Amino acid sequence: MANKMLGRDDHYMWAAIEEAQKAALVGEVPIGAVIVYEGEIIGRGHNLREHSQNALLHAEMVAIEEANAVLHSWRLTGCQLYVTLEPCVMCSGAIVNARLDRVVFGARDPKAGGTKTLYEILSDNRLNHQVDVTEGVLADEASQLLKTFFRAARNRRKAAKKIAQDSN
Amino acid sequence: MANKMLGRDDHYMWAAIEEAQKAALVGEVPIGAVIVYEGEIIGRGHNLREHSQNALLHAEMVAIEEANAVLHSWRLTGCQLYVTLEPCVMCSGAIVNARLDRVVFGARDPKAGGTKTLYEILSDNRLNHQVDVTEGVLADEASQLLKTFFRAARNRRKAAKKIAQDSN
Repeated sequence: MANKMLGRDDHYMWAAIEEAQKAALVGEVPIGAVIVYEGEIIGRGHNLREHSQNALLHAEMVAIEEANAVLHSWRLTGCQLYVTLEPCVMCSGAIVNARLDRVVFGARDPKAGGTKTLYEILSDNRLNHQVDVTEGVLADEASQLLKTFFRAARNRRKAAKKIAQDSN
Repeated sequence: MANKMLGRDDHYMWAAIEEAQKAALVGEVPIGAVIVYEGEIIGRGHNLREHSQNALLHAEMVAIEEANAVLHSWRLTGCQLYVTLEPCVMCSGAIVNARLDRVVFGARDPKAGGTKTLYEILSDNRLNHQVDVTEGVLADEASQLLKTFFRAARNRRKAAKKIAQDSN
């Protein structure tokens, strides 16, 4: 049973990683999320902050909006969210507000994590809903995507600087 | 100077209360928000969760999305948000993510407040941005709106129950 669960979590996390790869392709920080209801993916999202110039469009938020629309309900009872990086404070609050059952994330976010690292919003019993959390699913793959993205960004900056210096 | 500031805060909070009244008119919990940039209101929002069946559509979120669109920027540097009720965790996180300068709210939210009551997210210096907070502006007016709304909802439920009993 444990193996079966793990296999299922891996399966949906790969779908979230696919979403993260879509973000990377358009130059956004590669974070992706999917929402699963009764075994089916009903919401997908990737980080779109720069393209949209909308501060709210984190992967999780895009996926929640889509799942709300699919179920015609702001309540996502019975749903699980898979996301490559630990949700930030905004997204953790949104997950509570949307009444999701469970969140599975890949890597921790040491700078902004609202689910385990800086806050434990999803298990705060002062709030009117609590959410089960599983962490570390395909964490290396999720981290690698981010590392590759930021390394490429640094290299682009270095190359641009060199071109500027050479042309002086 | 202090009086002038207070006068200005009252002025924008009345605009937020007008937004809250729009929510009440359509049967939504009456919470309203506006965002001000260089003295001008560039974002307005009221709670639309039930009508939209979208868990994210709190007043603050609607106002942030509009301000992002008006400024063509996810960064709301130089902006102030006025909201009738203390922001929840999601909205507090969104306010940090959008880099607002200042938040002014009316009444505290003892059950879900993320800015003063349960959390102090806007002044958390572990996060990459801090936001000035002023509370208690037109708090009585904001609370009264909520009390009136919930009293009317209770009365409607009582009346419906009585009709059901009488028809038995």
